[in-house]
Amino acid sequence: MQPRVFLLGAGPGDPGLITRRAARRLGEVDVVLYDALVHPDLLALARPDAEKVFVGKRAGRVSQRQDDIHRRILEAVDAGKTVARLKGGDPYLFGRGSEEAELLASRGIPFEVVPGVPSPIAAAAYAGLALTHRESSSSIAYVTATESPEKDSASHDWPRLATATQTIVLFMGLRRLEALMETLIAHGRDASTPAAVVERASLPSQRTVVGTVGTIAALVRDAGLGTPALTIVGDVVRLRDKVRWFDTRPLFGARVLVMRPEGQTDGIVERLRDEAADPIVMPILRIAAPTDPAPFARAIEKLSTYHWVVLTSANGVDALFAELSRTGRDAR
Amino acid sequence: MQPRVFLLGAGPGDPGLITRRAARRLGEVDVVLYDALVHPDLLALARPDAEKVFVGKRAGRVSQRQDDIHRRILEAVDAGKTVARLKGGDPYLFGRGSEEAELLASRGIPFEVVPGVPSPIAAAAYAGLALTHRESSSSIAYVTATESPEKDSASHDWPRLATATQTIVLFMGLRRLEALMETLIAHGRDASTPAAVVERASLPSQRTVVGTVGTIAALVRDAGLGTPALTIVGDVVRLRDKVRWFDTRPLFGARVLVMRPEGQTDGIVERLRDEAADPIVMPILRIAAPTDPAPFARAIEKLSTYHWVVLTSANGVDALFAELSRTGRDAR
Repeated sequence: MQPRVFLLGAGPGDPGLITRRAARRLGEVDVVLYDALVHPDLLALARPDAEKVFVGKRAGRVSQRQDDIHRRILEAVDAGKTVARLKGGDPYLFGRGSEEAELLASRGIPFEVVPGVPSPIAAAAYAGLALTHRESSSSIAYVTATESPEKDSASHDWPRLATATQTIVLFMGLRRLEALMETLIAHGRDASTPAAVVERASLPSQRTVVGTVGTIAALVRDAGLGTPALTIVGDVVRLRDKVRWFDTRPLFGARVLVMRPEGQTDGIVERLRDEAADPIVMPILRIAAPTDPAPFARAIEKLSTYHWVVLTSANGVDALFAELSRTGRDAR
Repeated sequence: MQPRVFLLGAGPGDPGLITRRAARRLGEVDVVLYDALVHPDLLALARPDAEKVFVGKRAGRVSQRQDDIHRRILEAVDAGKTVARLKGGDPYLFGRGSEEAELLASRGIPFEVVPGVPSPIAAAAYAGLALTHRESSSSIAYVTATESPEKDSASHDWPRLATATQTIVLFMGLRRLEALMETLIAHGRDASTPAAVVERASLPSQRTVVGTVGTIAALVRDAGLGTPALTIVGDVVRLRDKVRWFDTRPLFGARVLVMRPEGQTDGIVERLRDEAADPIVMPILRIAAPTDPAPFARAIEKLSTYHWVVLTSANGVDALFAELSRTGRDAR
């Protein structure tokens, strides 16, 4: 494949929420540059020999980091490599993916953008809020707040935003939620409007706090919620009482140690995730050949002298057939 | 599995944009109830014996249709079946999925919601617009317009919406786009603001028309765009000049007949989609056993008398090994 860059949306958290196309592209590339919010399990979709490079927030100041990402993309392409730029949520929704696309386009480097499920969409589904409802909401605003009130006042028209849409989703700004909610109230949003904060949407560690525009900041502070989190304001929050399904499951949030050998955990990890549990894979067994292969080989040699061969596990079956095939026999 | 309902987002159009979780759930159910905007290829992810029922728009008036969908879901559950409710885009974003969730919750029927990539996210990626940009947009409004100006004026606060956010995405309302754009201008949006309409986002038949708030309605009418389509208003539309990648590919929109036998088309269909072409699968060959099996069986019987066996296709290899295995031999 010629050098090419894929800007891939990793989805909101749950590794099952990546798209089939992004998952496939991830398996094709030489280099994966991934962000902080990308689920570690997704890296297993890349080729074992692919280079996986963390370029997330902890890697430095934001502006410096973006320059560093650009530099790394170009270096890989110059070296003739295909690159996946794996970003949490969707690459073009508050993700600076458009800047990466501009860079690639300006250099004439072929690229493809694979959209992802954005975090508000996942928060609605997994916290049971919806974003729209026939009776209560047919308009939504997505707004990035920052940690800087001056910058937000300059870049956002709060007097209009406060009431323009039935639902408001605030990205970031959790640390100054109180000031943001006061701004909404000052500009005409009723303090009794339902509001929710969803932390780590779609993951077994998801936490949701529900209140009103007037109370949510204190409730979130008391609960100690942290990033990543979204704030959703509007009557749709009331739906949660009716349509919760994820964080009410019996196993929700349970951390379950899966101790089976590596490569034999897939089914159970998936089943646990389906039940909203948090599987932690920690293989305590390793299936290996006997240190002295002679007794096993002798047993196989005399196999036709036995009436019954009892196999006690799938691993035994695998070992038996491997030995048969190695010695040029078959099960007949 | 006990009766259970999955509300699945099918994604925006391209069948590769369904999530891995939704694809898996689709393969587990007894009944699939699918909407008009669901790509036909996604139905192939369901079990061959699963019942697939179209419940989309053409099935009747909107309100009647929703009642009908509710009835069908309940009937299937009563019959002990698992159901996938497969909806275009995301189930909770203008999809009436929240009403279906309310129904299920009120009856105590277990359900799961799997979010999907919404159409504006796909339109941004595939038409090369982005929705946000560090320099030009950190706020977006999603608004459903309808075909009824009276209803829209009543349910939307256009004086605020017109300028509250840097980017505006209008769902539906294409037939009265002119009136909608005039409303934006009347409430202070500059007529020279860039605007685009994207029809059939993410599909090889995608069409995009770019203009301004003042000109877009006429341009769209001249181009004859139809539904499904989204209107995107804001400076982010200018990005398209730089970061188009999908509809500039050499094979974009090319309808390619794939005439290979059924079951042997997967790789090529996927490759064509990757290149933005529109593969049409029309098998003109069927690989079948000879009507008279005797000559082939005789040749196989005498196989050890030949020095060379020349196999001219993968189908020949399959047939040879099937016959060997049927007659209790092997390749040795």
